[in-house]
Amino acid sequence: MDLEKIKNPEFLKKLNNEELISLASDIRKSIIEVVSTKGGHLSSNLGVVELTIALHTVFNAPKDKIIFDVGHQSYTHKILTGRYNEFKSSLRDFQGISGYQKMKESIYDCYEAGHSSTSISAACGFLKAQEINGENNDIIAVIGDSSITSGLALEGLNNLSSLKGKAIVVLNDNGMSISKPVGGVSKTLSRIRSSITYTSTKNKFRKVLSKIPFGSKIYVFLRYLKNSIRRLFIETTLFENFNLDYIGPIDGHNIKKMIKALKVAKNSHKSIVVHVITKKGFGYKPAEDDKYGKWHGVEEFDVSTGEFSSSKEKDLISWSEAISNIVYELMIKDSKIVTITPAMIEGSKLGRIFRDFPNRSIDVGISEEHAFTMAGSMYLGGCHPYISIYSTFLQRSYDELCHDVARMNIPIVVGIDRAGIVGKDGDTHQGIFDVAFLRSVPNTVIAMPKDYDDAKKLYEIAFEYNNMFFIRYPRGKIQIVSKRYNNDIYIGKWDIIECKSNSNLNIIVTGPIFDKVCEAFTNENIDANLIFARFYNPLDEKILQKICSNGGSIIIYDIYSTKEGLYDSICEYIVKNNYNPKVINLSLPTDFIQHGNLNEVLSSLSLDISSLINVVKGEI
Amino acid sequence: MDLEKIKNPEFLKKLNNEELISLASDIRKSIIEVVSTKGGHLSSNLGVVELTIALHTVFNAPKDKIIFDVGHQSYTHKILTGRYNEFKSSLRDFQGISGYQKMKESIYDCYEAGHSSTSISAACGFLKAQEINGENNDIIAVIGDSSITSGLALEGLNNLSSLKGKAIVVLNDNGMSISKPVGGVSKTLSRIRSSITYTSTKNKFRKVLSKIPFGSKIYVFLRYLKNSIRRLFIETTLFENFNLDYIGPIDGHNIKKMIKALKVAKNSHKSIVVHVITKKGFGYKPAEDDKYGKWHGVEEFDVSTGEFSSSKEKDLISWSEAISNIVYELMIKDSKIVTITPAMIEGSKLGRIFRDFPNRSIDVGISEEHAFTMAGSMYLGGCHPYISIYSTFLQRSYDELCHDVARMNIPIVVGIDRAGIVGKDGDTHQGIFDVAFLRSVPNTVIAMPKDYDDAKKLYEIAFEYNNMFFIRYPRGKIQIVSKRYNNDIYIGKWDIIECKSNSNLNIIVTGPIFDKVCEAFTNENIDANLIFARFYNPLDEKILQKICSNGGSIIIYDIYSTKEGLYDSICEYIVKNNYNPKVINLSLPTDFIQHGNLNEVLSSLSLDISSLINVVKGEI
Repeated sequence: MDLEKIKNPEFLKKLNNEELISLASDIRKSIIEVVSTKGGHLSSNLGVVELTIALHTVFNAPKDKIIFDVGHQSYTHKILTGRYNEFKSSLRDFQGISGYQKMKESIYDCYEAGHSSTSISAACGFLKAQEINGENNDIIAVIGDSSITSGLALEGLNNLSSLKGKAIVVLNDNGMSISKPVGGVSKTLSRIRSSITYTSTKNKFRKVLSKIPFGSKIYVFLRYLKNSIRRLFIETTLFENFNLDYIGPIDGHNIKKMIKALKVAKNSHKSIVVHVITKKGFGYKPAEDDKYGKWHGVEEFDVSTGEFSSSKEKDLISWSEAISNIVYELMIKDSKIVTITPAMIEGSKLGRIFRDFPNRSIDVGISEEHAFTMAGSMYLGGCHPYISIYSTFLQRSYDELCHDVARMNIPIVVGIDRAGIVGKDGDTHQGIFDVAFLRSVPNTVIAMPKDYDDAKKLYEIAFEYNNMFFIRYPRGKIQIVSKRYNNDIYIGKWDIIECKSNSNLNIIVTGPIFDKVCEAFTNENIDANLIFARFYNPLDEKILQKICSNGGSIIIYDIYSTKEGLYDSICEYIVKNNYNPKVINLSLPTDFIQHGNLNEVLSSLSLDISSLINVVKGEI
Repeated sequence: MDLEKIKNPEFLKKLNNEELISLASDIRKSIIEVVSTKGGHLSSNLGVVELTIALHTVFNAPKDKIIFDVGHQSYTHKILTGRYNEFKSSLRDFQGISGYQKMKESIYDCYEAGHSSTSISAACGFLKAQEINGENNDIIAVIGDSSITSGLALEGLNNLSSLKGKAIVVLNDNGMSISKPVGGVSKTLSRIRSSITYTSTKNKFRKVLSKIPFGSKIYVFLRYLKNSIRRLFIETTLFENFNLDYIGPIDGHNIKKMIKALKVAKNSHKSIVVHVITKKGFGYKPAEDDKYGKWHGVEEFDVSTGEFSSSKEKDLISWSEAISNIVYELMIKDSKIVTITPAMIEGSKLGRIFRDFPNRSIDVGISEEHAFTMAGSMYLGGCHPYISIYSTFLQRSYDELCHDVARMNIPIVVGIDRAGIVGKDGDTHQGIFDVAFLRSVPNTVIAMPKDYDDAKKLYEIAFEYNNMFFIRYPRGKIQIVSKRYNNDIYIGKWDIIECKSNSNLNIIVTGPIFDKVCEAFTNENIDANLIFARFYNPLDEKILQKICSNGGSIIIYDIYSTKEGLYDSICEYIVKNNYNPKVINLSLPTDFIQHGNLNEVLSSLSLDISSLINVVKGEI
């Protein structure tokens, strides 16, 4: 089928089963092709091609609201709602189409996310609004088996049955999640997957009973017994415990069966969970065989070989891998260190730690809150926890890191991955707010290294420190061998590189871009003091005093945090000490920053190195 | 029994059942007496007297770890661990004994909380630490039926069975929570409560079957059927779905039965939930009869009449009630407004709203995350949500208010109750961090009124505003009739009261203390400009410009937020505009502030009005 011609999903209702199957095949091919050239989420999108077709066949979007949890699996939805051309030409590009649902892109995107586990709560909100406004459209939340065990999703499930009217929760169960699923609920789901379905068991049981004298009477008796009979036939009553109806499991690659099940759900009067079994990466062998989530979110790759383009870059490893190696070495030396991740073993490259320290590494699943509270008491019990977490997901842990860790002066170490601009994932994933919300949490240290040696030293002092210690690092690559300006690092220490001519122009720079700034200043022969601000908190007051009293200007170049981070801290220092230098703020704006590659985004914010050079030249 | 003589809980193991019952009675009397004179949590503590005795009889604290969720029900625990004298003489007093568990108070307090639903995660952490350190003590989390449905607790439950070793979760089910319990899980628990227990049903069923031919054979057959037989006898498998064992329900006021059940749990090899049914307020009639949570946390009261001492203060109502009245009036006028609370109907005095607008008011339970995500989509669905939440609990919603509301420019209104120092609840409940973490969230307004008229006007403009609007108000009382300095309020507008002599000393004050500051300045005949900073964000740059350029000093007096709130915003303004006034910071310190009454706490921080006056006099 010519996907370009699709304007909206109306046409689906006229297709027969064979045509729907053929459409699924075309869409699947196109997803593989586009993702191989643009990068993006592959496995999750290949898993829900048939499910998305079935949804748009049974329901009437945009009147009915289809909410994709996270939204990273909405490529088929984008194609079916008339966005094939944009999808093909600009997926995840700067000012192009987003990798997630976006309301401004289409009226068929009724909601937006990026973080997981929001869809059930969102469905609750739409449902309540419908009740108040007297509407009666269908509301469908499509959520994965790992997302549904997050606290937020469970709160939503718990609330759902209290509301009037009905929402449909489609549990997209691929037994996979970002990496492998964890936890008790996951075990229950896995039991259901391997069991026979509700309907067929029921019939078999009825047959068995009919062969026993009085068997049918007992069947009636059992049925009478407060309806608990149903629990004999299906292995779980998880969702019934949340006072919700349940059908499934259903083969998520069989469009016909799914259409049937979704119609049952459509006719239900009570909120209902439709349990659909899909296979992540379905239709692309390397992704199907992936056990570790390597094909979850990918860079460009060669479709025929399954090789990633970026794997050709030599001498460079990702920051995630570099940090993971540092922690690995420390874990060898110190048997008290335990690594905790909320479902990011692959994302933060923790595989080697989990393989070699199985007892001292824990994947708690998508449970960012639990990760911190658990780490706190683990320290009290005699271990030294290290939490590895993305900056954007750390937002879910604010209360726990404050109330359950900092308040009790518990010295856990936290590695903040993906700090700063993340690039193509865009506004929902930018790691830019953490410094702003962390620096008012009492008794914490916040640092960001410029290179590998710096990071290594920071981790060493972090595990010796007597309070919570945050180390931020960005998305992107790092050279393992790097120059070292100063061997002597202690808490709060910045580095200052003074120019020969005693310049009184001072540039304060954070993070790994520092080396590039140095290089650019050398190339441009700029006469200024370059200061590397290794710590966001505490500040290096010795250096600040020096530059504040030399009568010149200060430029704060922090591309890894909003202005409420370092810039405001320095403003506070200046006012407190009654200095009066001219200060130019080149921090990230207090805003939600769109997707695109790092350089394009920085340049659009006038925060790339050439913008810095221009500002600097204006001050000389 | 002479409670003063108790040094530790060892003696319990030698008491017989009658002696334990008599001890419970003595402890109960003492709790009623002490709370009636000191204020504190009454109902929750009366509910767990027998349970706490049973716990300390069966387990060996401090080797075994007993974690009380929230910790507000630990009075019996405090008495049994040798703190009766301090409990009696100094409960919740400044520098006295805390109303919660505190590690520095006793080795029997192995953990601390204040916020709900942390205990299961804490148990997980202790369990993992024991595994790594090769220890094998019992770990017990005591958690209420409403706390267990919070996302954090459910994340902990989900993780628990993945860990080696065993923890015991004692579900203290009083069907009550802070107010009434909500949600699907709560309905399930309520069904169990009203049903007969597992053991007795099982026996009855066996009897019934034995009367039917081949009945016993069927019993065996059913048993064989993958153990699903158990599901016939108990109404729930909620905890089994989390892969945990379950026993109960057990009468939580029968010490003997509880000791028996806890011994079963102690011998279990798998993590297990012990479901205990208690009655909140047990033993004190007014608290037993309380359906709305009036007796949850109380001020001083008369034991014989059940009357609260504070109810005698006339012409004053609580800030919570005043704000609730304002919202009530707005809900009459605007049918789109929907009020949402996370379990604080009584705490935030929302009873009248819930009674008169049953369809437009939602208690989501202890689900602060869900509250915000749901509110966001409810707005997209055509309603105008208002969330009423305590400042300290707003911490749990940081990610959702940022990612699911602000990011999509959704204009919900949020009333932040208990902003600032909360008094006797202490460090876990201080509402002091919200301005610091909210002001870096893009597109938000943060305001705090000085009086009733101000609050009314702020709520009016909040519901007209096109983005998220936070209105903070403190714990404490308010006079309904108050002076009004300025009728014309718009976003960002502060008030300035200039002195006749054209003073260049400028005092910027936030919140309801402003009137008292005015009064004190008049009494002391102080010559200064008093500025009321109604908005934390945005600032009134017109007024700031005026006072920054008049060459004098600025004192920032903000007793409702840490310095990363208003003080840092003003520092940023000053540096950005290259002013150089002398600025004195009288904001709350970046610290966890201890319990005690408001004046004592402020005075200890040198932030009471006399301290301000002294600072001001030093500047004249």
